[in-house]
Amino acid sequence: MNGYQHLYIPGPTNVPEPVRQAMNVPMEDMRAPDFPELVTGLLTDMKKAYRLENGRVFIFPSSGTGAWESAIQNTLQPGDKVLMSRFGQFSLLWVDMAERLGLDVVLCEVEWGKGVPLEDYAKHLEADKDHQIKAVFATQNETATGVTSDIAGVRKVLDAAGHPAMLFVDGVSSIASIEFEMEKWGVDLAVSGSQKGFMLPAGLGFLGVSDKALEANKRLANSGMSRCYFSFEDMIKLNDTGYFPYTPATQLLRGLRCSLDMILDAGMESIWARHKRLAQGVRAAVEAWDGCELVARGPEWESDTVSAIYAPEGVDARDVISTAYNKYQTSLGTGLNKLAGKAFRIGHLGSLNPVMLCGAISAAEMALVDAGAKIEPGSGVAAAQAHYRETTPDNAKGSPAKAA
Amino acid sequence: MNGYQHLYIPGPTNVPEPVRQAMNVPMEDMRAPDFPELVTGLLTDMKKAYRLENGRVFIFPSSGTGAWESAIQNTLQPGDKVLMSRFGQFSLLWVDMAERLGLDVVLCEVEWGKGVPLEDYAKHLEADKDHQIKAVFATQNETATGVTSDIAGVRKVLDAAGHPAMLFVDGVSSIASIEFEMEKWGVDLAVSGSQKGFMLPAGLGFLGVSDKALEANKRLANSGMSRCYFSFEDMIKLNDTGYFPYTPATQLLRGLRCSLDMILDAGMESIWARHKRLAQGVRAAVEAWDGCELVARGPEWESDTVSAIYAPEGVDARDVISTAYNKYQTSLGTGLNKLAGKAFRIGHLGSLNPVMLCGAISAAEMALVDAGAKIEPGSGVAAAQAHYRETTPDNAKGSPAKAA
Amino acid sequence: MNGYQHLYIPGPTNVPEPVRQAMNVPMEDMRAPDFPELVTGLLTDMKKAYRLENGRVFIFPSSGTGAWESAIQNTLQPGDKVLMSRFGQFSLLWVDMAERLGLDVVLCEVEWGKGVPLEDYAKHLEADKDHQIKAVFATQNETATGVTSDIAGVRKVLDAAGHPAMLFVDGVSSIASIEFEMEKWGVDLAVSGSQKGFMLPAGLGFLGVSDKALEANKRLANSGMSRCYFSFEDMIKLNDTGYFPYTPATQLLRGLRCSLDMILDAGMESIWARHKRLAQGVRAAVEAWDGCELVARGPEWESDTVSAIYAPEGVDARDVISTAYNKYQTSLGTGLNKLAGKAFRIGHLGSLNPVMLCGAISAAEMALVDAGAKIEPGSGVAAAQAHYRETTPDNAKGSPAKAA
Amino acid sequence: MNGYQHLYIPGPTNVPEPVRQAMNVPMEDMRAPDFPELVTGLLTDMKKAYRLENGRVFIFPSSGTGAWESAIQNTLQPGDKVLMSRFGQFSLLWVDMAERLGLDVVLCEVEWGKGVPLEDYAKHLEADKDHQIKAVFATQNETATGVTSDIAGVRKVLDAAGHPAMLFVDGVSSIASIEFEMEKWGVDLAVSGSQKGFMLPAGLGFLGVSDKALEANKRLANSGMSRCYFSFEDMIKLNDTGYFPYTPATQLLRGLRCSLDMILDAGMESIWARHKRLAQGVRAAVEAWDGCELVARGPEWESDTVSAIYAPEGVDARDVISTAYNKYQTSLGTGLNKLAGKAFRIGHLGSLNPVMLCGAISAAEMALVDAGAKIEPGSGVAAAQAHYRETTPDNAKGSPAKAA
Repeated sequence: MNGYQHLYIPGPTNVPEPVRQAMNVPMEDMRAPDFPELVTGLLTDMKKAYRLENGRVFIFPSSGTGAWESAIQNTLQPGDKVLMSRFGQFSLLWVDMAERLGLDVVLCEVEWGKGVPLEDYAKHLEADKDHQIKAVFATQNETATGVTSDIAGVRKVLDAAGHPAMLFVDGVSSIASIEFEMEKWGVDLAVSGSQKGFMLPAGLGFLGVSDKALEANKRLANSGMSRCYFSFEDMIKLNDTGYFPYTPATQLLRGLRCSLDMILDAGMESIWARHKRLAQGVRAAVEAWDGCELVARGPEWESDTVSAIYAPEGVDARDVISTAYNKYQTSLGTGLNKLAGKAFRIGHLGSLNPVMLCGAISAAEMALVDAGAKIEPGSGVAAAQAHYRETTPDNAKGSPAKAA
Repeated sequence: MNGYQHLYIPGPTNVPEPVRQAMNVPMEDMRAPDFPELVTGLLTDMKKAYRLENGRVFIFPSSGTGAWESAIQNTLQPGDKVLMSRFGQFSLLWVDMAERLGLDVVLCEVEWGKGVPLEDYAKHLEADKDHQIKAVFATQNETATGVTSDIAGVRKVLDAAGHPAMLFVDGVSSIASIEFEMEKWGVDLAVSGSQKGFMLPAGLGFLGVSDKALEANKRLANSGMSRCYFSFEDMIKLNDTGYFPYTPATQLLRGLRCSLDMILDAGMESIWARHKRLAQGVRAAVEAWDGCELVARGPEWESDTVSAIYAPEGVDARDVISTAYNKYQTSLGTGLNKLAGKAFRIGHLGSLNPVMLCGAISAAEMALVDAGAKIEPGSGVAAAQAHYRETTPDNAKGSPAKAA
Repeated sequence: MNGYQHLYIPGPTNVPEPVRQAMNVPMEDMRAPDFPELVTGLLTDMKKAYRLENGRVFIFPSSGTGAWESAIQNTLQPGDKVLMSRFGQFSLLWVDMAERLGLDVVLCEVEWGKGVPLEDYAKHLEADKDHQIKAVFATQNETATGVTSDIAGVRKVLDAAGHPAMLFVDGVSSIASIEFEMEKWGVDLAVSGSQKGFMLPAGLGFLGVSDKALEANKRLANSGMSRCYFSFEDMIKLNDTGYFPYTPATQLLRGLRCSLDMILDAGMESIWARHKRLAQGVRAAVEAWDGCELVARGPEWESDTVSAIYAPEGVDARDVISTAYNKYQTSLGTGLNKLAGKAFRIGHLGSLNPVMLCGAISAAEMALVDAGAKIEPGSGVAAAQAHYRETTPDNAKGSPAKAA
Repeated sequence: MNGYQHLYIPGPTNVPEPVRQAMNVPMEDMRAPDFPELVTGLLTDMKKAYRLENGRVFIFPSSGTGAWESAIQNTLQPGDKVLMSRFGQFSLLWVDMAERLGLDVVLCEVEWGKGVPLEDYAKHLEADKDHQIKAVFATQNETATGVTSDIAGVRKVLDAAGHPAMLFVDGVSSIASIEFEMEKWGVDLAVSGSQKGFMLPAGLGFLGVSDKALEANKRLANSGMSRCYFSFEDMIKLNDTGYFPYTPATQLLRGLRCSLDMILDAGMESIWARHKRLAQGVRAAVEAWDGCELVARGPEWESDTVSAIYAPEGVDARDVISTAYNKYQTSLGTGLNKLAGKAFRIGHLGSLNPVMLCGAISAAEMALVDAGAKIEPGSGVAAAQAHYRETTPDNAKGSPAKAA
């Protein structure tokens, strides 16, 4: 009765109405003779969203973390050397997982606010003459700091060194939101999840796998890490018949069918452009707020799906977040790990539009002032408005049939 | 995929999530033995929302217009003299209906922007010594102009004149939103609908009827206007057994059960206060916009459920509305009848909160600027923010179980 | 947790899943610039479902009873002579309405179990040389007795007599279920509602109107019965622009868009055939039950949308119905008026299939035995199965995309 | 439009309407300050459904297969000796997983149609004087054959041998449906999933863990199998604060809140009794069908959640299943592995009632006859009816507020 809760975290994102309708379903038989029509279509279309021509995309009933684990378990062996970098909570957790799964991590520590260090990677790869490094890991979008890394650049570094390592990408908060070209960039394993750019509830982990990675998996055969739930072998065998090796989350698959239709209908380039447009408005607001600044250390690192924002000196970012939530019914992202208390985040990915973000910016503005920030009320909204007025197409609404 | 459509018209209003859940139902048997549990509870609780101790509330499968018609058909006869006033599109339509149904309307014309003219009413009633005037009509909230009239004042005028006329009130966009006291104010027929303060889809017309009006209906018996669908007699007969004389809209009744629970749980005074708080923020924004002003001609007329706003000189309000809709996915209310092109409206009733209204104000602001208004971008949002920051309770969100 | 409630009453009927999804919507602006796309499409497609080439179909926010009232108010005057027949609760109520609205009813009483008496109608029309009879009323499907009348036959009788009276048809429980040809049969006013063959919740009244009836309405102009809510004039004026004269029930309109798509996609003939196929199975079951028989007095009267069934001698049909409801979670139709205690009804219209009806027959069978009937358990289901096995197409399920 | 699809597979099961409503939600912030209210309540109440006083229940975003894997990864080491038995597709897959995860499986092969071989288990445990067997596995309900094993008996065998091995139970298709007493029976790891007795869509894997198993996990510390996604450590750490280590499937958690309320409100004993009552009706039908018989080799093995049924000699069970699906819109369970073509299954767990099962039996009956079986049409339904008439409480429907 007190209106909608406002959700501006970097996932789960807001579910479009057609997707919500599509998930309002009774249960169905996942062994029905016509179930493969659904499954095969999804597997084909996920490749389009991933920009993958060869290879496969797997759909696991799991979170993105599960897909991370699957990528490692199925293509690497304990003791394998891998090159990773750490510059935020999620790249940190990925390193942690790699170590726990027995990999020998060559780690590049990076200042939080920057991303994958191409030069460091180049050095390590150049130096690795006998190709001990089996895989290079890159977090495309570090959700904790709002930092986007240059994946095409990582590919260039690999190619320049003539290095055969596989390229692992964490695309959880980037794929289906910002530019991602799995085939063109030579990415071998790309992780994502349902609750971000795919605009669904959490519950599905996605994993794009190149032909090269599939070959690596075959070579491992029964050796390598123990795996069953997340094994490629079982999934391939059943997916090839249009089914899954265990009961899939059919409600989410029906939702995915709808969101993929929306995504592919709009076109990936259009979606990437929309995210950029929306993000720029938020960044304009941050710039207008005295004493606030992005955690990202420069335009080249700024993420189009989430902005991590330092609260002004003397303001506890936790107060901003709790006031936004309790008083203004608005969920902002928390500052994670070393950013706790220092930064808050505005998620701006998925199904959004300028007026929604003006609301989000207003909520942040009110909460900042309540928490003691000396910003000019309305300044952020005014800056965002100026951007949105100039960049929003006149027919943003689209036809009613396509409204979402 | 482009985010939510924003709905800030004075009805239909935004449906709270629990109500939406409650309407996601399969069909049911409206003659089932336990169906009366639902019906009886609704009829009892509608009286609480109407603040009616005696009398009845009818629930028709219709719009509010149908309830207008029912009120007249069941208690008046063709040729009966009635006192009415006209100061906006909806009071105008009510007069039109009264005339088409054969009533002899004594009409007070009032400047649009003001409401029921108590002094004129007093004069007419004082002069009507032989009580030819059978009913006095008052539009509590003129939705077209954002003007609220003083219903308690109309009662005082009637009492001062010692006049026995029935008091008809159009409460479509006021009941369950702003103060309304059917019993205390001696209102005899009070019309409302599901799609405003009751936070449901359109489809139910509500009619509160006092004991005095029920008596008037009985006296008419089979004389009076022809009526069947909207007749009190049929409805009373069946309602008394817990059923309806024809198939009711059970999906909406299930939704009404939920919204009434929310409304009565919060308490009417709390709801009225919330609407005032939200409305004040919108009015602060209007005041901050150079060249804009409320259609309401003074604070005593300002409505807490809808603000009609004159666009600045030289700006076509229709451009504001169409830009808001097509470019910013936001529905604002149109200027009706003589306000077409001059005014636009922001509906602020039902399930809303400050951040939603900051979004609505942002949308209006952007659309105003696009349409050529020389307002300061962000000025309205800043003014509203200041108000909301001061007046919103720290725990506005409430407990998660009650979140809506 | 105790499974679905089973609904086998002659309306409201079971809502197909796609329609249910389509109604799971937030509210929308009924004055939006693109709203007419929805409205115009619906008005056009309703004519297809009515098999009407000229004329119009109106969509009222009301029950079917409201559409009955609209038909009369807009085309007839108090005192007009009309020819009607009465053979069940709904034809009875229609006569009652006609009389209350001031018509001069020439009434043919018919044994309950039969339908419109063509010969009697012929006599009255032949005798009415100066065409005092302004309209002839026919209930196509008497829902209380499960009797279908011959509307094409009524047209023939009118033509044979060269009589210009308008033809009114109550098609509430027949249109979009069994054969109905508004244009071909020369029907002038045809009433229906959302909650039967259109497979929606209750809340919309439909009224098909021929050009001839529209002319009659124009001739009445401001004379005739008082009317406003249900007036053709207001509706025509706004419908012609793609809008409604008052707030429409948009949630139901979105549902109607979906159900019309399903209906027209399948094709009317296919729908009529399906209803016949399903009905025959129920009738086979009734025939197999010792001591039960249809209220319909012969195959020519049997309805394909509802079967009214006499309980065996000594068995109170009310016990059958209450046992089915309380013990077996199944709603059967009650015996109305003079059939109370004697008959129960199985509704078999709308979104149904053979296995659902085997369930309904099982429920009735168990309830009959519990209530003391000496029928052979399983006999009805066996008879229905035999019919369904022979007549159900092998691919009844259809493609998954069209599953409902 | 052709009515509901009928779902009588042993999971996913039919979702009750209140659960379906509860899942019709917008996304929410899984790091919100009040999110732990939801999580803590669920974790507490899952223990009640598991009948577990000490220990924990984990909720993974996965299928039940994931929970199988978690149980093994977290408490055993590669090379550990475990005692298992194989008598159907799911016990077979569990053995397969154990072997792939590196366990040394002592395998008891059992005729399909029987269950856990208590005597064989006793022999192995008695012989294992130095307690090399670290765990004993038992599939409580073999979904492929409709066989229930005696878990209390396995406990007795362990106790009689004074053997300290952990007891692993696959309760996927039994917990929350048939008697299961985790604490009383001394079960250490019990696997289940959302899409069976918990009446939700697939997507959540449940794992009950005793204090003894938690101790075993602690002893493993960083040794043992590599694990991350399914690791107890991460889950415990976050669950203890009311959160999850990665984004949980909040939509399903909201559904689980509702289904747990329904389950605990009814009481576990009542649920077990209801499943027995419903199952007996299905078995009565099978007995009535000439030439059909249960795969279960005796009453002591018969499952109350699913019946696997041999088609008569000469009838291909695949035809029965495909005819039921394509012609009668009914999903029956397929014959898995060596039962393919020989048997079909009727799932009778979750949200069901007698009339639904009469429908399922009718569908099977029609499909059997179509496939060439010489059964008496209606015989199965008649037998089931007789059982349901005698055993269904007169007020099975319950109050409307609790209807589901």
